[in-house]
Amino acid sequence: MAKRSLLVLACCLLSSAFAHADSDPLASWNDGEAKKAITKFVSTTCDTTSPLFVAPQDRIATFDQDGTLWVEHPIYTQCLFVLDRIRHLAKSRPELNEKEPFKTVIKGNLEEIGHFTEQDWVEILAMADAKISTAEFERDAKEWFTKARHPRFNRPFTDLAYQPMLEVLDYLRKNSYKTYIVTGGGQAFVRVYSEQVYGIPVEQVIGSLEKLQYEPKDGQPALMRLPQLFFNDNFGGKAVGIELFIGKKPKASFGNSTGDREMLEWTAAQNGARLMMLVYHDDPVREYAYGPAGGLADTHVGSFPESLMAEAKEKGWIVISMKRDWKKVFAWQD
Amino acid sequence: MAKRSLLVLACCLLSSAFAHADSDPLASWNDGEAKKAITKFVSTTCDTTSPLFVAPQDRIATFDQDGTLWVEHPIYTQCLFVLDRIRHLAKSRPELNEKEPFKTVIKGNLEEIGHFTEQDWVEILAMADAKISTAEFERDAKEWFTKARHPRFNRPFTDLAYQPMLEVLDYLRKNSYKTYIVTGGGQAFVRVYSEQVYGIPVEQVIGSLEKLQYEPKDGQPALMRLPQLFFNDNFGGKAVGIELFIGKKPKASFGNSTGDREMLEWTAAQNGARLMMLVYHDDPVREYAYGPAGGLADTHVGSFPESLMAEAKEKGWIVISMKRDWKKVFAWQD
Repeated sequence: MAKRSLLVLACCLLSSAFAHADSDPLASWNDGEAKKAITKFVSTTCDTTSPLFVAPQDRIATFDQDGTLWVEHPIYTQCLFVLDRIRHLAKSRPELNEKEPFKTVIKGNLEEIGHFTEQDWVEILAMADAKISTAEFERDAKEWFTKARHPRFNRPFTDLAYQPMLEVLDYLRKNSYKTYIVTGGGQAFVRVYSEQVYGIPVEQVIGSLEKLQYEPKDGQPALMRLPQLFFNDNFGGKAVGIELFIGKKPKASFGNSTGDREMLEWTAAQNGARLMMLVYHDDPVREYAYGPAGGLADTHVGSFPESLMAEAKEKGWIVISMKRDWKKVFAWQD
Repeated sequence: MAKRSLLVLACCLLSSAFAHADSDPLASWNDGEAKKAITKFVSTTCDTTSPLFVAPQDRIATFDQDGTLWVEHPIYTQCLFVLDRIRHLAKSRPELNEKEPFKTVIKGNLEEIGHFTEQDWVEILAMADAKISTAEFERDAKEWFTKARHPRFNRPFTDLAYQPMLEVLDYLRKNSYKTYIVTGGGQAFVRVYSEQVYGIPVEQVIGSLEKLQYEPKDGQPALMRLPQLFFNDNFGGKAVGIELFIGKKPKASFGNSTGDREMLEWTAAQNGARLMMLVYHDDPVREYAYGPAGGLADTHVGSFPESLMAEAKEKGWIVISMKRDWKKVFAWQD
């Protein structure tokens, strides 16, 4: 009986060892410089005999979200959510139909909305956020996701995470890396789906922050969202966010636009192992092409100017070509 | 051989079970309402058959630091550090010797310093923090701790954590609770010793924040501390800090002053299991007595007015009497 148990145990161990050897953790990646950079980084930093070994408590990897982990075109998902909120508000506040930029929002032409100035967006966000609690925001955002569909792919936004990047997240976590989202988008918005879509718990979502105020509401304390940006987690703000929320430099970071430049610079500025990667959108057939790959106008959505490509080349940051490096973009795509 | 291995395994399991039954995780606590509240909270929330069971990912416990986890009298440790910085600065900037509040700082009478206004402290902090990077701050604070001694106990400050609270931290963690510090003090300062003293990693330290700015310095990017408070993690700010850094309500929270009131209210405002506790300083012999226990003037250090005691009684928050509930205060004390 005892002998038989040991035999069963041995078989289990062997089959698990074979399963590991067989399965490619980055199955949706084509062989190439990008895939090799990731596997080499993980194997060397997790090898106790390597001079580049990283202790498990220092295995930190940070990921921009929009355009790095999921689709950001034709417009950030959170913007679509906010536009829908304005349309909903207009039902009880008809004066919004007469006033810009709300008039254009209600009309709903994405191209016209694409020309909004920063001031337009500040007014829209302030209007959308006024006087709701964190709990109400979460409830509303969750509900919105059940109905909203991407204008091109006609699928829930939660289907639009990049399969190859989900594999990177999993692969890193299986090797004791703690994965964080560091997004210019709103922390509260991304937290609504971060666990479900990316397996990233809410406390590992760093993002832009609205000012919150503690106040009693209906006899119970609530945190009210004030229509005021408290922290802009973009550009240099990404390095600041990493310091405040993690307190350690990431060993690997992944971005796709100028908003991620400082996060990559911050990651690069240390001795020992580190990996800096940029997702480059050059695949208009399966997703989009923008930046130097042309196609879409270089708007504020996912700005990837020639200067970023030049910096990447100069500094040895690895550029991931969506077209060349990814076997598939989405789990549901052939 | 296989049989013998099984026997060894069984013995190990048995001895480990006995070890668990034998050792009291809260050995420095006297039997009483406070100790019972903690053990009951842990056993019910970790019992899958209990209606008050809490899933491991929701097991969050938050702790104020000064006065809750370690000594805060006669003045917050961080204030002593900042005062020493001013004295150091004055060596190269003699004009500080002529100007208040710096003149009083340099003179060094703690009673006079105790009368500083908030504006005095703002000027002192601004002067102490000007133009140093996060890395320089960490280096300086670490070095300070190697030399600084508490004026009464004449020991390094890192010796002044309360042994009973260290046991609570350990006990909670052994039961899959994630422990966080939520301090009105500076996050960067507490992070210097949080792992060493409390076993709490830097990413689980929430505190007041200086404004940080990303900038290249000597050709390398640095985060510079600006002499400007970015976030006050006190009063309602503690609930805000918890939302931003954790994104979930704690199931247990521990404080000792009015600055912790909203954290406890926020913890209380949920269904299911929750535990709210206040450390009450009524032990002038082994530590200090302040608040309604009298003794020390109720300054801005650890304010515990009658109204907080009344709120605790009314709401069923458990007050920990240092004198009655703790067998010992410090590990090194008899």
